[in-house]
Amino acid sequence: MNLQRPTKRTLVEQIVAQLEQLIENGTWPVGERIPAEPELVQELGVSRNTIREAVHALIHAGMLRTRQGDGTYVCSSSSLTPALTRRLERSKLSDTLDVRFALEQEGARLAALRRTPEDIIQIRSAYEDYRKAEDEGDIDSFIRADCVFHSRIIAAAHNSILCDLYESIGEAVQQVVSYGRDYLALQQVHAELNKCLIEKIIEQDAAGSAETVRKYIDASRDMLLKDIQGGKEEHHE
Amino acid sequence: MNLQRPTKRTLVEQIVAQLEQLIENGTWPVGERIPAEPELVQELGVSRNTIREAVHALIHAGMLRTRQGDGTYVCSSSSLTPALTRRLERSKLSDTLDVRFALEQEGARLAALRRTPEDIIQIRSAYEDYRKAEDEGDIDSFIRADCVFHSRIIAAAHNSILCDLYESIGEAVQQVVSYGRDYLALQQVHAELNKCLIEKIIEQDAAGSAETVRKYIDASRDMLLKDIQGGKEEHHE
Repeated sequence: MNLQRPTKRTLVEQIVAQLEQLIENGTWPVGERIPAEPELVQELGVSRNTIREAVHALIHAGMLRTRQGDGTYVCSSSSLTPALTRRLERSKLSDTLDVRFALEQEGARLAALRRTPEDIIQIRSAYEDYRKAEDEGDIDSFIRADCVFHSRIIAAAHNSILCDLYESIGEAVQQVVSYGRDYLALQQVHAELNKCLIEKIIEQDAAGSAETVRKYIDASRDMLLKDIQGGKEEHHE
Repeated sequence: MNLQRPTKRTLVEQIVAQLEQLIENGTWPVGERIPAEPELVQELGVSRNTIREAVHALIHAGMLRTRQGDGTYVCSSSSLTPALTRRLERSKLSDTLDVRFALEQEGARLAALRRTPEDIIQIRSAYEDYRKAEDEGDIDSFIRADCVFHSRIIAAAHNSILCDLYESIGEAVQQVVSYGRDYLALQQVHAELNKCLIEKIIEQDAAGSAETVRKYIDASRDMLLKDIQGGKEEHHE
Protein backbone atom coordinates (compact mmCIF):
# COMPACT_ATOMS: atom_id res chain seq x y z
CA MET A 1 0.00 0.00 0.00
CA ASN A 2 3.02 2.29 0.39
CA LEU A 3 1.58 4.15 3.36
CA GLN A 4 3.93 6.55 5.10
CA ARG A 5 4.23 6.64 8.86
CA PRO A 6 3.33 10.16 9.96
CA THR A 7 5.93 12.10 11.89
CA LYS A 8 4.35 15.44 12.86
CA ARG A 9 1.27 16.70 14.67
CA THR A 10 -2.42 16.47 13.74
CA LEU A 11 -2.09 12.74 13.23
CA VAL A 12 -5.73 12.32 12.33
CA GLU A 13 -5.47 14.91 9.57
CA GLN A 14 -2.43 13.15 8.14
CA ILE A 15 -4.16 9.79 8.21
CA VAL A 16 -7.25 11.31 6.62
CA ALA A 17 -5.11 12.77 3.84
CA GLN A 18 -3.37 9.45 3.22
CA LEU A 19 -6.53 7.40 3.15
CA GLU A 20 -8.15 10.01 0.92
CA GLN A 21 -5.29 9.72 -1.50
CA LEU A 22 -5.57 5.92 -1.63
CA ILE A 23 -9.22 6.33 -2.52
CA GLU A 24 -8.67 9.13 -5.02
CA ASN A 25 -5.89 7.39 -6.91
CA GLY A 26 -7.90 4.18 -7.11
CA THR A 27 -5.71 2.00 -4.87
CA TRP A 28 -8.93 1.53 -2.96
CA PRO A 29 -11.54 1.62 -5.70
CA VAL A 30 -15.22 2.49 -5.24
CA GLY A 31 -17.17 -0.56 -4.04
CA GLU A 32 -14.20 -2.19 -2.33
CA ARG A 33 -13.88 -2.98 1.37
CA ILE A 34 -10.96 -1.20 3.04
CA PRO A 35 -8.55 -3.11 5.31
CA ALA A 36 -9.78 -3.78 8.83
CA GLU A 37 -8.76 -1.51 11.72
CA PRO A 38 -5.98 -3.77 13.14
CA GLU A 39 -4.28 -3.88 9.74
CA LEU A 40 -4.40 -0.09 9.38
CA VAL A 41 -3.14 0.33 12.96
CA GLN A 42 -0.13 -1.83 12.18
CA GLU A 43 0.59 -0.35 8.76
CA LEU A 44 0.36 3.27 9.90
CA GLY A 45 1.80 2.94 13.41
CA VAL A 46 -0.93 4.99 15.04
CA SER A 47 -3.56 4.17 17.67
CA ARG A 48 -6.87 2.52 17.02
CA ASN A 49 -8.62 5.75 18.05
CA THR A 50 -6.73 7.79 15.50
CA ILE A 51 -7.66 5.34 12.74
CA ARG A 52 -11.23 5.32 13.90
CA GLU A 53 -11.51 9.10 13.88
CA ALA A 54 -9.95 9.33 10.43
CA VAL A 55 -12.32 6.70 9.06
CA HIS A 56 -15.26 8.55 10.62
CA ALA A 57 -14.15 11.76 8.98
CA LEU A 58 -14.17 10.04 5.59
CA ILE A 59 -17.57 8.54 6.32
CA HIS A 60 -18.92 12.01 7.02
CA ALA A 61 -17.19 13.29 3.91
CA GLY A 62 -19.19 10.73 1.95
CA MET A 63 -16.19 8.71 0.73
CA LEU A 64 -16.64 5.66 2.98
CA ARG A 65 -19.68 3.80 4.22
CA THR A 66 -19.94 1.22 6.99
CA ARG A 67 -22.05 -1.87 6.40
CA GLN A 68 -23.31 -3.31 9.66
CA GLY A 69 -21.15 -6.30 10.63
CA ASP A 70 -19.39 -6.34 7.28
CA GLY A 71 -16.73 -3.63 7.36
CA THR A 72 -16.17 -0.29 5.69
CA TYR A 73 -16.54 0.27 1.94
CA VAL A 74 -15.45 2.96 -0.47
CA CYS A 75 -18.54 4.70 -1.86
CA SER A 76 -17.13 7.78 -3.62
CA SER A 77 -13.73 8.45 -5.12
CA SER A 78 -13.53 12.02 -3.83
CA SER A 79 -14.93 14.23 -1.09
CA LEU A 80 -15.75 16.81 -3.74
CA THR A 81 -18.65 14.87 -5.24
CA PRO A 82 -20.51 14.28 -1.93
CA ALA A 83 -19.89 17.89 -0.81
CA LEU A 84 -21.19 19.21 -4.13
CA THR A 85 -24.15 16.83 -4.03
CA ARG A 86 -25.11 18.01 -0.53
CA ARG A 87 -24.82 21.59 -1.69
CA LEU A 88 -26.88 21.02 -4.83
CA GLU A 89 -29.63 19.32 -2.83
CA ARG A 90 -30.19 22.64 -1.12
CA SER A 91 -29.94 24.73 -4.29
CA LYS A 92 -32.41 25.88 -6.89
CA LEU A 93 -32.50 23.72 -10.02
CA SER A 94 -32.01 26.81 -12.16
CA ASP A 95 -28.72 27.57 -10.37
CA THR A 96 -27.57 23.98 -10.80
CA LEU A 97 -28.39 24.08 -14.51
CA ASP A 98 -26.40 27.31 -15.00
CA VAL A 99 -23.29 25.60 -13.67
CA ARG A 100 -23.90 22.42 -15.61
CA PHE A 101 -24.28 24.34 -18.84
CA ALA A 102 -21.12 26.34 -18.15
CA LEU A 103 -19.15 23.11 -17.77
CA GLU A 104 -20.88 21.45 -20.70
CA GLN A 105 -20.14 24.25 -23.11
CA GLU A 106 -16.48 24.62 -22.15
CA GLY A 107 -16.15 20.82 -22.02
CA ALA A 108 -17.32 20.51 -25.62
CA ARG A 109 -15.00 23.31 -26.72
CA LEU A 110 -12.02 21.63 -25.08
CA ALA A 111 -13.07 18.21 -26.39
CA ALA A 112 -12.83 19.59 -29.93
CA LEU A 113 -9.29 20.75 -29.21
CA ARG A 114 -8.07 17.67 -27.33
CA ARG A 115 -10.00 14.62 -28.49
CA THR A 116 -7.88 11.58 -29.39
CA PRO A 117 -8.81 8.95 -32.01
CA GLU A 118 -9.88 6.72 -29.09
CA ASP A 119 -12.18 9.47 -27.80
CA ILE A 120 -13.87 9.67 -31.19
CA ILE A 121 -14.50 5.91 -31.15
CA GLN A 122 -16.01 6.20 -27.66
CA ILE A 123 -18.20 9.16 -28.59
CA ARG A 124 -19.41 7.51 -31.79
CA SER A 125 -20.23 4.26 -30.00
CA ALA A 126 -22.19 6.16 -27.34
CA TYR A 127 -24.02 7.97 -30.12
CA GLU A 128 -24.97 4.62 -31.72
CA ASP A 129 -26.38 3.41 -28.41
CA TYR A 130 -28.28 6.65 -28.09
CA ARG A 131 -29.87 6.23 -31.54
CA LYS A 132 -30.73 2.62 -30.78
CA ALA A 133 -32.42 3.61 -27.50
CA GLU A 134 -34.29 6.31 -29.38
CA ASP A 135 -35.63 3.77 -31.87
CA GLU A 136 -36.69 1.41 -29.09
CA GLY A 137 -38.65 4.21 -27.48
CA ASP A 138 -37.92 3.30 -23.84
CA ILE A 139 -37.54 6.67 -22.16
CA ASP A 140 -35.35 5.49 -19.25
CA SER A 141 -32.72 3.76 -21.35
CA PHE A 142 -32.89 6.66 -23.78
CA ILE A 143 -32.11 9.21 -21.06
CA ARG A 144 -29.28 7.00 -19.78
CA ALA A 145 -27.81 6.73 -23.27
CA ASP A 146 -28.09 10.50 -23.73
CA CYS A 147 -26.22 11.05 -20.45
CA VAL A 148 -23.48 8.60 -21.43
CA PHE A 149 -23.08 10.34 -24.78
CA HIS A 150 -22.61 13.74 -23.14
CA SER A 151 -20.27 12.29 -20.51
CA ARG A 152 -18.07 10.85 -23.24
CA ILE A 153 -17.76 14.29 -24.78
CA ILE A 154 -16.80 15.84 -21.47
CA ALA A 155 -14.29 13.00 -20.96
CA ALA A 156 -12.63 13.98 -24.26
CA ALA A 157 -11.71 17.33 -22.69
CA HIS A 158 -9.22 15.35 -20.57
CA ASN A 159 -9.81 17.32 -17.41
CA SER A 160 -10.69 15.31 -14.32
CA ILE A 161 -12.02 18.22 -12.23
CA LEU A 162 -14.32 19.26 -15.06
CA CYS A 163 -15.50 15.64 -15.35
CA ASP A 164 -16.12 15.25 -11.61
CA LEU A 165 -18.05 18.48 -11.35
CA TYR A 166 -20.08 17.65 -14.44
CA GLU A 167 -20.94 14.14 -13.22
CA SER A 168 -21.94 15.32 -9.74
CA ILE A 169 -24.16 18.00 -11.21
CA GLY A 170 -25.64 15.55 -13.69
CA GLU A 171 -26.64 13.23 -10.84
CA ALA A 172 -28.18 16.09 -8.90
CA VAL A 173 -30.22 17.13 -11.94
CA GLN A 174 -31.35 13.55 -12.59
CA GLN A 175 -32.69 13.35 -9.05
CA VAL A 176 -35.05 16.28 -9.39
CA VAL A 177 -36.02 16.49 -13.04
CA SER A 178 -38.94 14.47 -14.28
CA TYR A 179 -38.49 13.85 -17.96
CA GLY A 180 -42.00 13.98 -19.35
CA ARG A 181 -43.51 14.28 -22.81
CA ASP A 182 -41.88 17.64 -23.46
CA TYR A 183 -38.58 15.94 -23.13
CA LEU A 184 -39.43 13.40 -25.79
CA ALA A 185 -40.73 16.15 -28.05
CA LEU A 186 -37.39 17.90 -27.68
CA GLN A 187 -35.49 14.84 -28.75
CA GLN A 188 -35.68 15.60 -32.44
CA VAL A 189 -33.88 18.85 -31.78
CA HIS A 190 -31.38 17.09 -29.49
CA ALA A 191 -30.70 14.27 -31.93
CA GLU A 192 -29.78 16.73 -34.64
CA LEU A 193 -27.63 18.83 -32.32
CA ASN A 194 -25.87 15.73 -30.98
CA LYS A 195 -25.02 14.66 -34.52
CA CYS A 196 -23.78 18.15 -35.33
CA LEU A 197 -21.71 18.20 -32.12
CA ILE A 198 -19.88 14.99 -33.05
CA GLU A 199 -18.96 16.47 -36.42
CA LYS A 200 -17.67 19.69 -34.90
CA ILE A 201 -15.57 17.76 -32.39
CA ILE A 202 -14.10 15.53 -35.09
CA GLU A 203 -13.30 18.62 -37.17
CA GLN A 204 -11.66 20.16 -34.08
CA ASP A 205 -13.98 23.14 -34.45
CA ALA A 206 -13.86 24.52 -30.90
CA ALA A 207 -16.09 27.56 -31.45
CA GLY A 208 -18.58 25.47 -33.44
CA SER A 209 -18.76 22.87 -30.67
CA ALA A 210 -19.39 25.50 -28.03
CA GLU A 211 -22.05 27.10 -30.20
CA THR A 212 -23.82 23.77 -30.75
CA VAL A 213 -23.94 23.16 -27.01
CA ARG A 214 -25.31 26.66 -26.52
CA LYS A 215 -28.18 25.80 -28.89
CA TYR A 216 -28.81 22.60 -26.96
CA ILE A 217 -28.85 24.57 -23.71
CA ASP A 218 -31.22 27.21 -25.04
CA ALA A 219 -33.56 24.45 -26.20
CA SER A 220 -33.39 22.49 -22.90
CA ARG A 221 -33.33 25.06 -20.14
CA ASP A 222 -36.92 26.25 -20.17
CA MET A 223 -38.22 22.74 -20.63
CA LEU A 224 -36.24 21.36 -17.70
CA LEU A 225 -37.33 24.20 -15.45
CA LYS A 226 -40.96 23.96 -16.54
CA ASP A 227 -40.89 20.23 -15.86
CA ILE A 228 -39.71 20.72 -12.33
CA GLN A 229 -42.22 23.45 -11.61
CA GLY A 230 -45.05 21.35 -13.00
CA GLY A 231 -43.98 18.34 -10.93
CA LYS A 232 -44.19 14.83 -12.26
CA GLU A 233 -47.38 15.33 -14.26
CA GLU A 234 -47.38 13.12 -17.27
CA HIS A 235 -50.71 14.03 -18.75
CA HIS A 236 -51.76 17.56 -19.35
CA GLU A 237 -54.05 17.22 -22.31
CA MET B 1 -31.30 29.08 17.08
CA ASN B 2 -34.42 27.11 16.07
CA LEU B 3 -32.66 23.76 16.26
CA GLN B 4 -34.90 20.73 15.88
CA ARG B 5 -34.59 17.75 18.15
CA PRO B 6 -33.81 14.74 15.97
CA THR B 7 -36.21 11.83 16.12
CA LYS B 8 -34.79 9.05 13.90
CA ARG B 9 -31.56 7.09 13.48
CA THR B 10 -28.05 8.24 12.46
CA LEU B 11 -28.15 10.95 15.06
CA VAL B 12 -24.68 12.20 14.24
CA GLU B 13 -25.58 12.67 10.59
CA GLN B 14 -28.66 14.63 11.55
CA ILE B 15 -26.71 16.83 13.90
CA VAL B 16 -24.05 17.36 11.24
CA ALA B 17 -26.74 18.40 8.75
CA GLN B 18 -28.30 20.84 11.22
CA LEU B 19 -25.03 22.44 12.23
CA GLU B 20 -24.02 22.64 8.57
CA GLN B 21 -27.23 24.46 7.78
CA LEU B 22 -26.69 26.98 10.58
CA ILE B 23 -23.28 27.71 9.10
CA GLU B 24 -24.46 27.82 5.51
CA ASN B 25 -27.37 30.14 6.14
CA GLY B 26 -25.18 32.50 8.14
CA THR B 27 -26.78 31.96 11.58
CA TRP B 28 -23.25 31.05 12.59
CA PRO B 29 -21.15 33.33 10.38
CA VAL B 30 -17.54 32.73 9.38
CA GLY B 31 -15.18 33.87 12.14
CA GLU B 32 -17.68 33.35 14.96
CA ARG B 33 -17.31 30.96 17.89
CA ILE B 34 -20.02 28.32 18.03
CA PRO B 35 -21.88 27.59 21.32
CA ALA B 36 -20.01 25.40 23.81
CA GLU B 37 -20.70 21.67 24.01
CA PRO B 38 -23.00 21.78 27.07
CA GLU B 39 -25.23 24.34 25.37
CA LEU B 40 -25.50 22.22 22.22
CA VAL B 41 -26.17 19.11 24.30
CA GLN B 42 -29.08 20.85 25.99
CA GLU B 43 -30.48 22.47 22.88
CA LEU B 44 -30.34 19.31 20.75
CA GLY B 45 -31.16 16.72 23.37
CA VAL B 46 -28.37 14.37 22.36
CA SER B 47 -25.29 13.09 24.18
CA ARG B 48 -22.01 14.89 24.49
CA ASN B 49 -20.37 12.19 22.35
CA THR B 50 -22.81 12.70 19.52
CA ILE B 51 -22.18 16.46 19.54
CA ARG B 52 -18.46 15.86 19.67
CA GLU B 53 -18.47 13.51 16.71
CA ALA B 54 -20.64 15.89 14.67
CA VAL B 55 -18.31 18.79 15.43
CA HIS B 56 -15.31 16.67 14.49
CA ALA B 57 -16.93 15.80 11.19
CA LEU B 58 -17.34 19.50 10.41
CA ILE B 59 -13.75 20.17 11.45
CA HIS B 60 -12.58 17.54 8.96
CA ALA B 61 -14.92 18.98 6.36
CA GLY B 62 -13.08 22.28 6.79
CA MET B 63 -16.06 24.24 8.10
CA LEU B 64 -15.02 24.48 11.75
CA ARG B 65 -11.67 24.95 13.45
CA THR B 66 -10.72 24.47 17.10
CA ARG B 67 -8.52 27.05 18.78
CA GLN B 68 -6.63 25.56 21.70
CA GLY B 69 -8.34 26.54 24.93
CA ASP B 70 -10.62 28.99 23.19
CA GLY B 71 -13.43 27.00 21.58
CA THR B 72 -14.54 26.13 18.08
CA TYR B 73 -14.86 28.69 15.30
CA VAL B 74 -16.54 28.76 11.91
CA CYS B 75 -13.89 28.96 9.21
CA SER B 76 -15.81 28.27 6.00
CA SER B 77 -19.46 28.74 5.13
CA SER B 78 -19.72 25.46 3.22
CA SER B 79 -18.04 22.07 2.96
CA LEU B 80 -17.91 22.54 -0.80
CA THR B 81 -15.17 25.14 -0.73
CA PRO B 82 -12.72 23.13 1.44
CA ALA B 83 -13.42 19.93 -0.55
CA LEU B 84 -12.83 21.74 -3.82
CA THR B 85 -9.72 23.43 -2.45
CA ARG B 86 -8.24 20.07 -1.37
CA ARG B 87 -9.03 18.65 -4.77
CA LEU B 88 -7.51 21.61 -6.63
CA GLU B 89 -4.33 21.37 -4.56
CA ARG B 90 -3.74 17.98 -6.16
CA SER B 91 -4.71 19.08 -9.66
CA LYS B 92 -2.82 20.56 -12.57
CA LEU B 93 -3.11 24.33 -12.88
CA SER B 94 -4.21 23.96 -16.49
CA ASP B 95 -7.20 21.82 -15.38
CA THR B 96 -8.09 24.36 -12.71
CA LEU B 97 -7.95 27.19 -15.23
CA ASP B 98 -10.26 25.34 -17.65
CA VAL B 99 -12.93 25.17 -14.98
CA ARG B 100 -12.41 28.73 -13.87
CA PHE B 101 -12.76 30.00 -17.40
CA ALA B 102 -15.90 27.93 -17.95
CA LEU B 103 -17.51 29.55 -14.91
CA GLU B 104 -16.19 33.00 -15.76
CA GLN B 105 -17.56 32.99 -19.27
CA GLU B 106 -21.01 31.73 -18.32
CA GLY B 107 -21.01 34.02 -15.28
CA ALA B 108 -20.45 37.07 -17.49
CA ARG B 109 -23.14 35.93 -19.91
CA LEU B 110 -25.65 35.52 -17.08
CA ALA B 111 -24.56 38.78 -15.46
CA ALA B 112 -25.52 40.58 -18.67
CA LEU B 113 -28.98 39.02 -18.50
CA ARG B 114 -29.59 39.45 -14.77
CA ARG B 115 -27.64 42.43 -13.48
CA THR B 116 -29.64 44.88 -11.34
CA PRO B 117 -28.96 48.65 -11.12
CA GLU B 118 -27.21 47.93 -7.79
CA ASP B 119 -24.95 45.36 -9.50
CA ILE B 120 -23.92 47.98 -12.06
CA ILE B 121 -23.00 50.39 -9.26
CA GLN B 122 -20.92 47.66 -7.58
CA ILE B 123 -19.17 46.66 -10.79
CA ARG B 124 -18.41 50.28 -11.72
CA SER B 125 -17.04 51.03 -8.28
CA ALA B 126 -14.80 47.94 -8.43
CA TYR B 127 -13.61 49.09 -11.85
CA GLU B 128 -12.72 52.52 -10.46
CA ASP B 129 -10.65 50.86 -7.71
CA TYR B 130 -8.99 48.71 -10.32
CA ARG B 131 -8.01 51.75 -12.42
CA LYS B 132 -6.73 53.54 -9.33
CA ALA B 133 -4.57 50.54 -8.37
CA GLU B 134 -3.28 50.42 -11.92
CA ASP B 135 -2.20 54.08 -11.74
CA GLU B 136 -0.49 53.53 -8.40
CA GLY B 137 1.49 50.64 -9.87
CA ASP B 138 1.46 48.38 -6.81
CA ILE B 139 1.11 44.90 -8.26
CA ASP B 140 -0.43 43.27 -5.17
CA SER B 141 -3.23 45.76 -4.72
CA PHE B 142 -3.71 45.78 -8.47
CA ILE B 143 -4.24 42.01 -8.59
CA ARG B 144 -6.58 42.24 -5.63
CA ALA B 145 -8.62 44.95 -7.33
CA ASP B 146 -8.74 42.90 -10.54
CA CYS B 147 -10.07 39.89 -8.59
CA VAL B 148 -12.71 41.99 -6.84
CA PHE B 149 -13.82 43.40 -10.19
CA HIS B 150 -14.27 39.94 -11.69
CA SER B 151 -16.01 38.64 -8.54
CA ARG B 152 -18.52 41.49 -8.75
CA ILE B 153 -19.36 40.45 -12.27
CA ILE B 154 -19.88 36.83 -11.24
CA ALA B 155 -22.01 38.07 -8.32
CA ALA B 156 -24.28 39.81 -10.83
CA ALA B 157 -25.17 36.40 -12.26
CA HIS B 158 -27.10 35.84 -8.98
CA ASN B 159 -26.14 32.20 -8.64
CA SER B 160 -24.59 31.20 -5.34
CA ILE B 161 -23.15 27.85 -6.51
CA LEU B 162 -21.47 29.53 -9.46
CA CYS B 163 -20.07 32.17 -7.07
CA ASP B 164 -18.78 29.62 -4.56
CA LEU B 165 -17.09 27.50 -7.20
CA TYR B 166 -15.58 30.57 -8.84
CA GLU B 167 -14.24 31.95 -5.54
CA SER B 168 -12.73 28.61 -4.47
CA ILE B 169 -11.04 28.20 -7.80
CA GLY B 170 -9.84 31.79 -7.73
CA GLU B 171 -8.16 31.19 -4.36
CA ALA B 172 -6.52 28.00 -5.62
CA VAL B 173 -5.14 29.82 -8.65
CA GLN B 174 -3.86 32.70 -6.51
CA GLN B 175 -1.90 30.24 -4.41
CA VAL B 176 0.13 28.84 -7.27
CA VAL B 177 0.43 31.58 -9.86
CA SER B 178 3.25 34.06 -9.58
CA TYR B 179 2.25 37.24 -11.31
CA GLY B 180 5.43 38.51 -12.92
CA ARG B 181 6.27 41.10 -15.54
CA ASP B 182 4.30 39.28 -18.22
CA TYR B 183 1.24 39.84 -16.14
CA LEU B 184 1.84 43.56 -16.01
CA ALA B 185 2.48 43.64 -19.74
CA LEU B 186 -0.88 41.97 -20.26
CA GLN B 187 -2.67 44.58 -18.24
CA GLN B 188 -3.20 46.92 -21.14
CA VAL B 189 -5.14 44.19 -22.88
CA HIS B 190 -7.01 43.38 -19.69
CA ALA B 191 -7.91 46.97 -18.93
CA GLU B 192 -9.47 47.40 -22.34
CA LEU B 193 -11.35 44.10 -22.13
CA ASN B 194 -12.58 44.92 -18.63
CA LYS B 195 -13.94 48.23 -19.86
CA CYS B 196 -15.59 46.51 -22.80
CA LEU B 197 -17.07 43.86 -20.49
CA ILE B 198 -18.77 46.48 -18.30
CA GLU B 199 -20.36 48.05 -21.36
CA LYS B 200 -21.64 44.71 -22.65
CA ILE B 201 -23.11 43.86 -19.26
CA ILE B 202 -24.83 47.24 -18.98
CA GLU B 203 -26.22 46.80 -22.50
CA GLN B 204 -27.42 43.31 -21.47
CA ASP B 205 -25.47 41.88 -24.39
CA ALA B 206 -25.07 38.27 -23.21
CA ALA B 207 -23.25 36.93 -26.26
CA GLY B 208 -20.96 39.97 -26.34
CA SER B 209 -20.10 39.55 -22.66
CA ALA B 210 -19.23 35.88 -23.15
CA GLU B 211 -17.13 36.75 -26.17
CA THR B 212 -15.22 39.44 -24.28
CA VAL B 213 -14.41 36.98 -21.50
CA ARG B 214 -13.26 34.48 -24.12
CA LYS B 215 -10.77 37.09 -25.42
CA TYR B 216 -9.56 37.70 -21.88
CA ILE B 217 -9.12 33.96 -21.39
CA ASP B 218 -7.23 33.47 -24.63
CA ALA B 219 -4.92 36.32 -23.67
CA SER B 220 -4.34 35.04 -20.10
CA ARG B 221 -4.14 31.27 -20.33
CA ASP B 222 -0.72 30.82 -21.87
CA MET B 223 0.77 33.52 -19.71
CA LEU B 224 -0.56 32.03 -16.48
CA LEU B 225 0.68 28.58 -17.45
CA LYS B 226 4.07 29.87 -18.57
CA ASP B 227 4.41 31.77 -15.32
CA ILE B 228 3.84 28.67 -13.25
CA GLN B 229 6.24 26.59 -15.30
CA GLY B 230 8.90 29.28 -15.11
CA GLY B 231 8.50 29.61 -11.35
CA LYS B 232 8.81 32.93 -9.62
CA GLU B 233 11.50 34.40 -11.85
CA GLU B 234 11.12 38.10 -12.10
CA HIS B 235 14.04 38.92 -14.31
CA HIS B 236 14.77 37.13 -17.52
CA GLU B 237 16.49 39.76 -19.57
